[in-house]
Amino acid sequence: MKNYFAEFFGTFWLVFGGCGSALFAAGIPDLGIGYMGVAFAFGLTVLTMAYAVGHVSGGHFNPAVSIGLLVGGRFQAKDLLPYILSQVLGALAAGAILYLILTGNANPVAIDNTKAGAFAANGYGVLSPHGYQFGAAFLAEAVLTAFFLIVILGATDKFANGKFAGIAIGLALTLIHLISIPITNTSVNPARSTSQAIIAGGEYLSQLWLFWAAPIIGAIIGALIYKSLIQKSDPS
Amino acid sequence: MKNYFAEFFGTFWLVFGGCGSALFAAGIPDLGIGYMGVAFAFGLTVLTMAYAVGHVSGGHFNPAVSIGLLVGGRFQAKDLLPYILSQVLGALAAGAILYLILTGNANPVAIDNTKAGAFAANGYGVLSPHGYQFGAAFLAEAVLTAFFLIVILGATDKFANGKFAGIAIGLALTLIHLISIPITNTSVNPARSTSQAIIAGGEYLSQLWLFWAAPIIGAIIGALIYKSLIQKSDPS
Amino acid sequence: MKNYFAEFFGTFWLVFGGCGSALFAAGIPDLGIGYMGVAFAFGLTVLTMAYAVGHVSGGHFNPAVSIGLLVGGRFQAKDLLPYILSQVLGALAAGAILYLILTGNANPVAIDNTKAGAFAANGYGVLSPHGYQFGAAFLAEAVLTAFFLIVILGATDKFANGKFAGIAIGLALTLIHLISIPITNTSVNPARSTSQAIIAGGEYLSQLWLFWAAPIIGAIIGALIYKSLIQKSDPS
Amino acid sequence: MKNYFAEFFGTFWLVFGGCGSALFAAGIPDLGIGYMGVAFAFGLTVLTMAYAVGHVSGGHFNPAVSIGLLVGGRFQAKDLLPYILSQVLGALAAGAILYLILTGNANPVAIDNTKAGAFAANGYGVLSPHGYQFGAAFLAEAVLTAFFLIVILGATDKFANGKFAGIAIGLALTLIHLISIPITNTSVNPARSTSQAIIAGGEYLSQLWLFWAAPIIGAIIGALIYKSLIQKSDPS
Repeated sequence: MKNYFAEFFGTFWLVFGGCGSALFAAGIPDLGIGYMGVAFAFGLTVLTMAYAVGHVSGGHFNPAVSIGLLVGGRFQAKDLLPYILSQVLGALAAGAILYLILTGNANPVAIDNTKAGAFAANGYGVLSPHGYQFGAAFLAEAVLTAFFLIVILGATDKFANGKFAGIAIGLALTLIHLISIPITNTSVNPARSTSQAIIAGGEYLSQLWLFWAAPIIGAIIGALIYKSLIQKSDPS
Repeated sequence: MKNYFAEFFGTFWLVFGGCGSALFAAGIPDLGIGYMGVAFAFGLTVLTMAYAVGHVSGGHFNPAVSIGLLVGGRFQAKDLLPYILSQVLGALAAGAILYLILTGNANPVAIDNTKAGAFAANGYGVLSPHGYQFGAAFLAEAVLTAFFLIVILGATDKFANGKFAGIAIGLALTLIHLISIPITNTSVNPARSTSQAIIAGGEYLSQLWLFWAAPIIGAIIGALIYKSLIQKSDPS
Repeated sequence: MKNYFAEFFGTFWLVFGGCGSALFAAGIPDLGIGYMGVAFAFGLTVLTMAYAVGHVSGGHFNPAVSIGLLVGGRFQAKDLLPYILSQVLGALAAGAILYLILTGNANPVAIDNTKAGAFAANGYGVLSPHGYQFGAAFLAEAVLTAFFLIVILGATDKFANGKFAGIAIGLALTLIHLISIPITNTSVNPARSTSQAIIAGGEYLSQLWLFWAAPIIGAIIGALIYKSLIQKSDPS
Repeated sequence: MKNYFAEFFGTFWLVFGGCGSALFAAGIPDLGIGYMGVAFAFGLTVLTMAYAVGHVSGGHFNPAVSIGLLVGGRFQAKDLLPYILSQVLGALAAGAILYLILTGNANPVAIDNTKAGAFAANGYGVLSPHGYQFGAAFLAEAVLTAFFLIVILGATDKFANGKFAGIAIGLALTLIHLISIPITNTSVNPARSTSQAIIAGGEYLSQLWLFWAAPIIGAIIGALIYKSLIQKSDPS
């Protein structure tokens, strides 16, 4: 059970830190942290939890990562559903606390700054932060998740310098956000997307399927690329 | 005694660097470092001192952290009061030097940029940087300190990759500030809050109790979560 | 073959992440990541891939680096051309995907923000982001690539603390971009320059030779400096 | 001789990267890196060179650091003058190359953005970036250099986790700049100050003595604090 709790709290932290920084701090005039601050926040949630609970659960915090690790031969099928369930529940719990904090804010200017109507939900087309259409959104999410898995599988390879994996993987998520917040508000993580779409509601919920499909397809492709083209075979 | 001095100087550095960057550099038009720069400054004070004096005192620099480590079974009760005293004295000394530097500044525009009337004090309600009310402030401080303790206890667990703990813990503090400067100006550290409330005075002093209570309650909850739900038991 | 694929995907990631963040996220008003975000993106592509595939190919991702490592005695001549070919092909593939994502964007304001007419191409004179002339551009590219090679050769020296090389080398690329995006849009990497010049076309293609010549000359000079002036001889 | 060359090139990189990013990239409207980007640039010059040539020379790159290490018992007196000479010459060489690149820029707007009249020189009073007077400047430089030495001596202590010292020390310099660029443009390094004062000339040269005196006094105080109050004695 401890690995499930580790995934629950790790994914809670990912959503609370990443989406929370976007809601509370990104859009404040002059002093706000902008997209770059949000990119660091998401990456640091994973970096910090990888070193904190990685030795308990492996530190996935993301259904697409769990699926990619399964394809890459690093994760057991019997744990897949409980991991995904723990991740989604952790993400939902974080979304609920974010909602509580935001509704505890009596200052309408601050709420406007958070653009809290849509929370930190992901979207394409009219819901893309900067007007990117369906095809561009799907392609970006799939490519970025594919490379996320290449970094994860590579950095934790038995021939690699594995103690640094938490730094490499966390900062890979920062990098992914530096590239793609304007495109889809960046998912690469179906649990994170679900937690915000449920609060934002409406059209965001209708688009949620893409933020399960594209990251999972990307993760599978990335795992296959690493396994078949890059991974060194055993010397034996 | 050397561990007490390590805590004194470490907490001095936390307040001098974190609050100092907020006072001197955050609000300068165009070139200022903004909330993101302050977030990095706070985190880097802990990262740097963890590697510098962590081997002497454990590197707490924060009464809530000392209490959480006690609850988590990583710290001895007999050292608690001297540690907290060293931390508060270090924080007060740093506040005094910050005050000296700022009053040595003859340029009223620069002083305005620092919003030095309130120094870098923490607050809620009308004293929140962006209007967050009591409940939101308490909840945010408690949740963030709880996760800070989960990261600290996890990253220093005997089964973890402990040499990286200074990076994980320092950058966890950066992340915490990326999320919550707009809510309470971010405490999660009663010593840091005390040093600024004393200079800011008035209503900031009346609100100071929250920045002892919420971080300490959060730290205890975080330690209990880690200990009971996440921590792996010994194989024996 | 696996090392060639590692170089292909690593250089893809460098161009997709570095140039992609410049195209999609740098110029957005108020929230955009600016030159600093692009600098971190480029550096993090190398940091992440160094830990992910460095154990497979050495993690060059840059023809100038491969040539410098050859001069420094760390790389075999027989692998030089296949490495450079893999790097250029990876860069071109990333440029093509970036083009697809951008043309999938129906929002003309977003396209304007990306200044996509010139993609993320490098240039000097009228094509320099801030008007730096030929001599300044050549000098900057050569000096920066020389020091990039000093960092690479030093951080991977057998007497050095080699496990941290991925951090040092990745963040050296961040530093290089912090200095020189305004001068040439920062190359120090002929493969990266080629991928963007081909899309930007026109005068950018005519200037492309400089972004092969200056980085390669700089890399050779840096390798010679490290080898002859800094590198410690064996104790034997 | 190799350690002297290592100090020469390391200090060249510190000035070229730190002052160069300030000159070329800090003040550009909208996209510029601001004081935070300059803070990261200075820190990354030290982080990268610490891992690249630290095993050759110890990686001081700063006369105040060499003096502090001497006081702390980590450096031999016979090397002090050649180290300081190598550092100052490296800094001057970097200043010359920066001057060449800047004068190769035909665009007066870009030169205005660099505020190149004063180069990246340090100053107090009317030459302080934001009006900080003599006493505030001296106090800030001394306190910051003292803590820089505490971090350096602590992170390289034989009881510490010494492989991470390059990260801790480099990021300490980033932190120092996050705090104090508005006060004095941040020195804590007499070689860096000398290289810019010589180009800026006039009053900047008259003030240069402070940027030797305050960092050196601070370094000595920091070394004495570490040695007498924090450093653990041998178990024997």
